[in-house]
Formats: sequence, C-alpha cells, structure tokens
Amino acid sequence: MSDEKIYFSKDLSIRERACFESGIKLGALYHILCGIPISTDKKVVDSIEKGIEAAISCQPYVKNVKIALNAEKIKGEKKNAFDYDEITGKIIRAELILEYECIKIVAKIDWVDSLEYPLMFIEEIQEKD
Amino acid sequence: MSDEKIYFSKDLSIRERACFESGIKLGALYHILCGIPISTDKKVVDSIEKGIEAAISCQPYVKNVKIALNAEKIKGEKKNAFDYDEITGKIIRAELILEYECIKIVAKIDWVDSLEYPLMFIEEIQEKD
Amino acid sequence: MSDEKIYFSKDLSIRERACFESGIKLGALYHILCGIPISTDKKVVDSIEKGIEAAISCQPYVKNVKIALNAEKIKGEKKNAFDYDEITGKIIRAELILEYECIKIVAKIDWVDSLEYPLMFIEEIQEKD
Amino acid sequence: MSDEKIYFSKDLSIRERACFESGIKLGALYHILCGIPISTDKKVVDSIEKGIEAAISCQPYVKNVKIALNAEKIKGEKKNAFDYDEITGKIIRAELILEYECIKIVAKIDWVDSLEYPLMFIEEIQEKD
Repeated sequence: MSDEKIYFSKDLSIRERACFESGIKLGALYHILCGIPISTDKKVVDSIEKGIEAAISCQPYVKNVKIALNAEKIKGEKKNAFDYDEITGKIIRAELILEYECIKIVAKIDWVDSLEYPLMFIEEIQEKD
Repeated sequence: MSDEKIYFSKDLSIRERACFESGIKLGALYHILCGIPISTDKKVVDSIEKGIEAAISCQPYVKNVKIALNAEKIKGEKKNAFDYDEITGKIIRAELILEYECIKIVAKIDWVDSLEYPLMFIEEIQEKD
Repeated sequence: MSDEKIYFSKDLSIRERACFESGIKLGALYHILCGIPISTDKKVVDSIEKGIEAAISCQPYVKNVKIALNAEKIKGEKKNAFDYDEITGKIIRAELILEYECIKIVAKIDWVDSLEYPLMFIEEIQEKD
Repeated sequence: MSDEKIYFSKDLSIRERACFESGIKLGALYHILCGIPISTDKKVVDSIEKGIEAAISCQPYVKNVKIALNAEKIKGEKKNAFDYDEITGKIIRAELILEYECIKIVAKIDWVDSLEYPLMFIEEIQEKD
C-alpha cells in the first residue's frame, strides 16, 4: 500500500480517486494559464501551450495533456504596444488524459456559451484495456 | 436536467462528480496561493487566508473553505526590506467542504513530510443527512 | 552601502530605482489578482482586496497599497452555481505608494477604455517632505 | 503624443519611465512562473522557459527576454508520482532587454544567497546606439 493512500477516506473507490485527481489537474492548469500575456501570433500561442502542457505533465497520473487555446477569441495584432491580450477562461480549451491504477479518464475544459462559463467536465471514464 | 450535465459522461456517478469538483477547487486554491508574498505578521496571514477563502467560496458547490497557512514555516520578521516570504506548497494547508447534490465531501491540502509533497486528499465522503 | 545595491548599474539614480521598484510591485499585484474567482457580494470583494493588499505590503519599499476592484464590471449574482466572475485586467484598479530612500512615488493601475488596456502609470514622483 | 502618456506625471523622465516598465515586466514574469510544476527533464524545463518567454515578449517595449531556470536546484527525477518540483523564487533566473524610446535597459532576476532573496535589478541603462 503506497504511502499517500492512508490519507484518503477508505470509502473512496479507485474511480472516485481518479475523478478527484482529474479535477486537481484541470483546476491547476486553468489557474496557471489565467493572466498570461498572449498575442495572435501562432508561434506565441504554440509556445505557451507547449510550456504549460509540459508543466502539467509532471503531475501525478497525467498521461497526456493538450492545450488548444481558442485563437479566434484572442485579440491583438500588435498594431501598437498595447495591442495584445491576456489569457482568460474565454479562450482556455484543454484535454487531459489521466490514468490512476486501472482507470482512465478523459477530462476537458471548454467555454460553454449557454452557461457563459469555462466548464471542466469528465467526458470518458473507463477501465484501461 | 441542468444544462451542464450533458457534457459529462453518462457513466459518471454523483459521488464521482463530487470528487471531480472537489479536485478542481483544491487545484485552483493551491495555484492561486502560490507565489503570494507573506510575512509572519498574524494580520497579514489572516487577511490573505480570508481573501482567498472568500474567492474560492464563489465557486460551484463549495459549502465552506478554511485556509490555515502553516505559520511556523513562514520566514521573515521584516528586519530588512527583503526579509519576508512567499507562499509555496510547504505552508499551504486548507480544508474544503463541498456538496454536490446529496453528496458531501471533506477534502484537504497538507504538506506530507514523508512524501515531501503538498498532498490533496479526500478525508470524508458521505450522503448528506 | 547595502548589499543589494552592488547588483544595480552605477548609472541608476535614486529616482530611477524608485520607478523600477514601483513597476515590480504593480506587475506582481496584477498577476497575483488575475484569475481569482469573485462575485458581486461586497464582503467577497472586500476580503479579496484586503488579502492582496496585505500581501503586497510585505514587499520592499511599499508604504501603502489600496486595491479598489471595479465592482460595476463584476458579473454574477449567484443565481446558479456558475454565475460568478473571475478577476481580469478589466476590473483591476489599485494605488501604490512606494518610498525608496528620499523618493516617494504614487503609482496606479486602471483600465483605460481608449486603449482597451489595464494601464500601469506613475502619477506622482517627488522628494519626501 | 501618444495616448497613454497623459496618465503619467510630467516630471517623469524617459529613463524613469523605462525603469518603471522594466519593473512591471519582471514582476509579471516572476508571478506567472511561481507555482508552475516542473521536473529535471531538460525538455520540460526548455518548454516552460520558452512558453513564458513568448508570453512576456507580447508586452510593451520588450525587445528580448531569456529565462534560464536554475536546473541544479530543481528537485525530482520522477522516481514516483510525487517526485517533481514547483517553480519558486529559488530557481527563477531571467534577463530582460527593454527599449523605451531612446533608452535601452538590461534587467535581471537572480537568487542572491547573501540576501536569501530573488533580486530584481537593472544591470545596464543606456541610450540606444
């Protein structure tokens, strides 16, 4: 039994633990991205996405993370010094694949217009093959 | 059926959703706190704790959140201008009470010496009374 | 001669150093605030403002800092779980009073509509009385 | 006269404005980096450095920014899920080149052992060639 499990409720299933871990990563990813300066330059967008993907990939149980900021909503063509944007929930889109023991989860962040909200949700949860 | 549920896997139980939501809040809380300047002055510590508690309380399904930074590990008595600290995982301690539908969760962040890690864990999960 | 001065260019005046230090504090304050959840509840707004004011006050040469988020631009009356906001440059307003040796600076952050930009600027710079 | 200058004190010199702008960028860079997960894997370190360099490069008057995190101080070889690190002031090193009108500034962040502090300082300030 690994060290950290003693801190968790014995009532928690493996699936529930996997859901909890997925939430942690999306909450972290979101708040790391918020406020980062960005422009419409594709190289800038790519570098930021790859940098934060690499960081989140260090966290426990993360198998893959893909950030795809919504470039259509980024403002700023650097016509003057102030013409750029900062990352907010409106442009954050990401997909996380997390594996905890035998459970695999696909979880996402995406802006939902009808809620006016950057929703984090679990799209798939299954036993690994 | 509320709007956001259509984005979630139909295989997800209410308990699993509650675990996911708890993870999101702890991940957010942690990364909002990281890097905030702090000193050993009790008033400063209290104000920061209360400010971020108020912020996290705005998030969905949060019933209560209590931040209790580990004052013993904060450095700095302002003997000179540079003698203060910044918040890292070593001093972050928090307790979250979250309710999603009929499920109540108590989740925590605390530094675990044996892991050298700021562990986030679910201490209790139960049906509400 | 204090320790840290040896790292600075000898060509730098006291006024220039004071301007540099003011910029550091506003850049920090801004990026600490970005992404923090918030609602229109006055108690929530007050707590967040006071928490981050206390934090920035720990930094070198800060005499006073006053955050006055623009409540009119905050969305969310908690009609449902998702009806709240997050802090962005559009609502950040702050005033910093910094004293470095004999120089006193009043610096601000405010949203400038004509620039569509959260401008940081030095409003006053003077020798202390 | 560009729009934003009307907000600044008329007593502020071009050199002083350049110092203020340099401080803003270093304060921003520092607080964006704080708390980002990281490992000793060179690819991870490189990606994070390049991502935040790209972001800071969007900001006004930035000519170049180079982040060189102190890899010797990063912990974690991923021997287990929890064996990684998070970015703090101890490992942040960066160099900023900023040009405001005729003034060029080289400014840095580096950990100073004798101060136990991540010092931000202006190393060079000069008229552009």
